[in-house]
Amino acid sequence: MSSALPPDLSAFRDLLDEGGLVTDAASLTRYTHDQRSLMRGETPGVLRPRSTGEVQEIVRLAARSGFGLVPQGGNTSYVGGATPEPGRRQLVVSLERMNRVRSVDATGFTVACDAGTILADAQAAAEASGCLLPLSLGAEGSCRLGGNVGTNAGGLQVLRYGMTRDLVLGLEVVLPDGSLFSDMRTLRKNNIGYDLKQLFIGAEGTLGIITGVVLKLWPAQTQRATAWLQLAARAPIPDIAALIRRETADLASTFELISASSLGLVADMRGADLGLAAGPGGAVLLELSASAQRIPLTEILLGTLEALMEAGHVEDAVLAQSERQRREMWTIRETIPEAEKHAGGSVKLDIAVPTSAVSDFLERAGAVVAEQAPGTRLSFYGHVGDGNIHFNLLVPGGRDRIDFTREVEEGIAHAIYAVAIDLGGSFSAEYGIGRFKRDLLGRYGDPVRLDLLATLKRAVDPTGLMNAGAMT
Amino acid sequence: MSSALPPDLSAFRDLLDEGGLVTDAASLTRYTHDQRSLMRGETPGVLRPRSTGEVQEIVRLAARSGFGLVPQGGNTSYVGGATPEPGRRQLVVSLERMNRVRSVDATGFTVACDAGTILADAQAAAEASGCLLPLSLGAEGSCRLGGNVGTNAGGLQVLRYGMTRDLVLGLEVVLPDGSLFSDMRTLRKNNIGYDLKQLFIGAEGTLGIITGVVLKLWPAQTQRATAWLQLAARAPIPDIAALIRRETADLASTFELISASSLGLVADMRGADLGLAAGPGGAVLLELSASAQRIPLTEILLGTLEALMEAGHVEDAVLAQSERQRREMWTIRETIPEAEKHAGGSVKLDIAVPTSAVSDFLERAGAVVAEQAPGTRLSFYGHVGDGNIHFNLLVPGGRDRIDFTREVEEGIAHAIYAVAIDLGGSFSAEYGIGRFKRDLLGRYGDPVRLDLLATLKRAVDPTGLMNAGAMT
Repeated sequence: MSSALPPDLSAFRDLLDEGGLVTDAASLTRYTHDQRSLMRGETPGVLRPRSTGEVQEIVRLAARSGFGLVPQGGNTSYVGGATPEPGRRQLVVSLERMNRVRSVDATGFTVACDAGTILADAQAAAEASGCLLPLSLGAEGSCRLGGNVGTNAGGLQVLRYGMTRDLVLGLEVVLPDGSLFSDMRTLRKNNIGYDLKQLFIGAEGTLGIITGVVLKLWPAQTQRATAWLQLAARAPIPDIAALIRRETADLASTFELISASSLGLVADMRGADLGLAAGPGGAVLLELSASAQRIPLTEILLGTLEALMEAGHVEDAVLAQSERQRREMWTIRETIPEAEKHAGGSVKLDIAVPTSAVSDFLERAGAVVAEQAPGTRLSFYGHVGDGNIHFNLLVPGGRDRIDFTREVEEGIAHAIYAVAIDLGGSFSAEYGIGRFKRDLLGRYGDPVRLDLLATLKRAVDPTGLMNAGAMT
Repeated sequence: MSSALPPDLSAFRDLLDEGGLVTDAASLTRYTHDQRSLMRGETPGVLRPRSTGEVQEIVRLAARSGFGLVPQGGNTSYVGGATPEPGRRQLVVSLERMNRVRSVDATGFTVACDAGTILADAQAAAEASGCLLPLSLGAEGSCRLGGNVGTNAGGLQVLRYGMTRDLVLGLEVVLPDGSLFSDMRTLRKNNIGYDLKQLFIGAEGTLGIITGVVLKLWPAQTQRATAWLQLAARAPIPDIAALIRRETADLASTFELISASSLGLVADMRGADLGLAAGPGGAVLLELSASAQRIPLTEILLGTLEALMEAGHVEDAVLAQSERQRREMWTIRETIPEAEKHAGGSVKLDIAVPTSAVSDFLERAGAVVAEQAPGTRLSFYGHVGDGNIHFNLLVPGGRDRIDFTREVEEGIAHAIYAVAIDLGGSFSAEYGIGRFKRDLLGRYGDPVRLDLLATLKRAVDPTGLMNAGAMT
């Protein structure tokens, strides 16, 4: 078998142990196809190091032998951020065997992990020590921390805890010259020159390979209070979000808007009444949480709901009376992406606008779709307490999903992005740029910004070794 | 008067309006001497632009005429970060006339300001809109936002709200080539390539001149509960901080340790009993705050105090029964720096350690002082819930303050830094590097880190126009 390897790959094999180099076509597809099968990449091989030292060796050897590298965690990118490109002679560096939780500090509230640690495993390690790792998103069972950091992942609890960037205390990164930037300190405050780790957060692997991560933890939440809100017609989402922040003293950890259409898709898939309805303005899943039993969370939630009703924003609300009922509310929210698939798939637009512009965006973007693509069904939902809306167009019956995706992305998507940008928003809230949104970056990016971005890329990775084709 | 100007300065005068260029010696000292008079800088002139456009013109003209620039806000640096150096031919760019709060969004919880806005003015604008700008520090009446961002300021409420970096949503920066990096968006989520604004936060003006800032706000706090805790002997600070986070559901906004010696200095200065005492383990000023009246804050505080006493960490506690009593507790804390001055001054070491190592640090650093400088009085206090300790050595009676400062900084300070670094800590928690700690950066900085820092400086500011002599 090994004799079939090109000689330049055999040097990589020699670096790594059994299973460290994958080259057979059947095994490669797991790494070369993105999760939505929108892109089929190509690579001569996947490297699976077991240590930071091995990553350093890989980087040095790749630089010498003319290979590019594509770092990969759980391969859950929505934008082709971890897909090796045909014609670029890129090797994938999968961190999946560097998946150790290194340490948890339950007094200082920190966790240190290998970058290949699956997010859910890091969450579980925190929980086992009485702590909370609040980063939480749909892919948490398979995405890996290095990818979360490299894409500055958002998710379900940004409202209270912030994006991944806000959680990162330390990083360890192998630079394009093979040297190791090691800043795995657990310090909350440390002003000793440029905060270099910030550079790698959200850089999508284009400046180095993240091998280790220190994240902030919080005290474990020991109680929750959860409600399903039916919004009144034209209920102003920004005012509702602001009222909730104020009235709950920021104990709200989740504020998820669910449109009536998204809810309908879930009901269609299940073929059953969900037992929970949207109001004319949609529905909101609201959850408060606290780390101490002495906080009267249910009373706080009830008082907040009363204030929302008094203000005329909410028509009715259901309080989860049991963990089973709470789980059911969450399941509905979490099932939306699957329900979209079941309905034939969707084109996902990951919009951000200033929190105070969410309702304006929904109204104006809805009008754009009604005018330019009449009859197209929408499914929108998301973490709108942060101004992040997943604004998705359903693939019409009989249309090919990939064809329709191209049509939307080349057409109406731009009209929708234009609305977001006019409101001070963005065409990418949490998914990032990757390979699918590079043209958008060029199209909507301010030239000074793009120039500075290119300057940094050239300065840190002058030969373009790292994830060429993504973002830059 | 103008005929006395060197011709290269007159071009700057022509750019700016009345009062835009300051050159007379008497007026210059306000800009050339740092606030502790540890450094006397020199400059041919101070430029006081009124707009971002004028800053761009200044940068272009300086580049053409061979001047360096030193951006300055309130000139409150503890490390000579904004002091023009003799021999460097540096002009000061004071942002003091760019001090407008541009807008407050009370629904989206953001404020946009000119970089020369005084922190207290930004706080007041937020408050007038029912919001809280939680950045709060001793110098808030004179420091300016651009300086806060450039130094990534910390302060009194980092425990709950984070450092300045965690509050920044948008920035506007004039780059060394005079172009404008404008990212004043109020977005909470925006993943569109490297988050370039991060580069300028904490860069101490070495990469560009910050002219505008967007900060996150919070709902205004409408109630507080405040207590003064007397700690038991050898009370473990990290465990106390962790218990407080957990039991208050992170509603604690302030956790300030005050050593018995610091308290003694305040009593000495006042010449009166303070009415509040430290326990054998020191004292803690603890404050909870909430944005809604329905949160039973006093009950939560009482329950937390009970848990602290049950654990044996706290011997006694006084609950502030009135705003007057609360103010008195705060005044004691805030008076410590003045009381140190009154006692003859102090050498301030701005230490950070992992939160869980605070007690270890205090014990080991105290032993170092007892051994190497017996008889030296200490005053330590600070935001230890974040691992930040202001560990100050009092100037002995009869010693010259500046001589003693040099002696400490060249001698025992290194032994104390060594303890911090051995515990995974840092020699600069919030003050930054500036001109006084450059040698420390070289001494304790990892070579890969320093090399990357220099690479970025070269890439963004290749001619070294910006704040040469500070940090890099």
